[in-house]
Amino acid sequence: MPEPSTAAKPRRQGRPPTIANARDRILDDAARLFARDGYDGTSLGELAASVGITKAAIYHYFPNKQEIYEAIIVRTLGGLRHHVSQATAQVSGPDEALARFMTAHADFFEEHYDGFLTMLVGYGGMENVVMLAEAQKLRDEHEQALRQIIAEGIAKGVFRLVDIDTTSRAVLSMLNWMVRWFKPGKGRRAASFAQDYCDLMLGGLRS
Amino acid sequence: MPEPSTAAKPRRQGRPPTIANARDRILDDAARLFARDGYDGTSLGELAASVGITKAAIYHYFPNKQEIYEAIIVRTLGGLRHHVSQATAQVSGPDEALARFMTAHADFFEEHYDGFLTMLVGYGGMENVVMLAEAQKLRDEHEQALRQIIAEGIAKGVFRLVDIDTTSRAVLSMLNWMVRWFKPGKGRRAASFAQDYCDLMLGGLRS
Repeated sequence: MPEPSTAAKPRRQGRPPTIANARDRILDDAARLFARDGYDGTSLGELAASVGITKAAIYHYFPNKQEIYEAIIVRTLGGLRHHVSQATAQVSGPDEALARFMTAHADFFEEHYDGFLTMLVGYGGMENVVMLAEAQKLRDEHEQALRQIIAEGIAKGVFRLVDIDTTSRAVLSMLNWMVRWFKPGKGRRAASFAQDYCDLMLGGLRS
Repeated sequence: MPEPSTAAKPRRQGRPPTIANARDRILDDAARLFARDGYDGTSLGELAASVGITKAAIYHYFPNKQEIYEAIIVRTLGGLRHHVSQATAQVSGPDEALARFMTAHADFFEEHYDGFLTMLVGYGGMENVVMLAEAQKLRDEHEQALRQIIAEGIAKGVFRLVDIDTTSRAVLSMLNWMVRWFKPGKGRRAASFAQDYCDLMLGGLRS
């Protein structure tokens, strides 16, 4: 597995920048601009002005706009993976593990809405093979963690003998489709909807 | 409710065209091109060449590219609504109604994949108020039909007392997210996945 150097660390060339967390701030502002104006509608000049740095300072961290876009995708997937795995680290059983997985996923989505939007829109068009490999690895790990929860639930007799792929896909579909209708900061939290989905999924429709 | 004249009928100006089903053929080819190359990547000249007519003939039916795009959305939602309501017209009970709703939705999605893709991508950006109103009406009717199935299931005691909005949203999320991973003509039918989702939703995870 190649080291995801462009994604994981700033490449320090020339003198080090004086702006704290510049790389993260570039990605934060870029995610916000991409989410609002789209990839084509966002220029590096605009991004530099938003961060309050020069275009040259941006080129210190990223060779071009596409790599900024892909770095957002990798960072978002990495953050999601980290957040959800922490939330599911200590649970009392498969029911709680599933609820924690779903609510943590929804929480991360809401807290990093712009990056999540960029990730869901841009994932299919990634070009940098190193970053694509890293994104795929993180996505696979996230999905595998969910399948593991379902498999353990079945093994322990807490869950029925359901198809693991179907169930995993159903859960992720409900969570990911939120991007189409959920707006952060307008009433209920995303995690509250995710908890309802989880209860429905656990209990089923039939009385 | 304004009559959706641009969406429902060709506007006949000048002499009538000699090409059979020209309007539908324009929309079919446009959906295919939009799905493949995106809205910006598709020109009316290309579309005319694909249909085998002149650009002037296209202007006989549609004033511009945006209206073609929006006509695809309205036609797709209309077709979906019609197909699903036919499939759920005569059923033995709420379980079967839900299964029919989900498999018919998935079938229509698979059979009209390009139009469905265009619809899901383009719905949020509709500009023609008449076509937008028609699209919203069709979408609302489709969602209402699903909520009605769930409400009847609860009323008959076949379903638990679940939250109707959550359940309806969960079902549509699973079906709509298919656009992100399902590819027509590669093995299993979309309706087969939808049936699995339905069984999972009905039976739930808990043993």
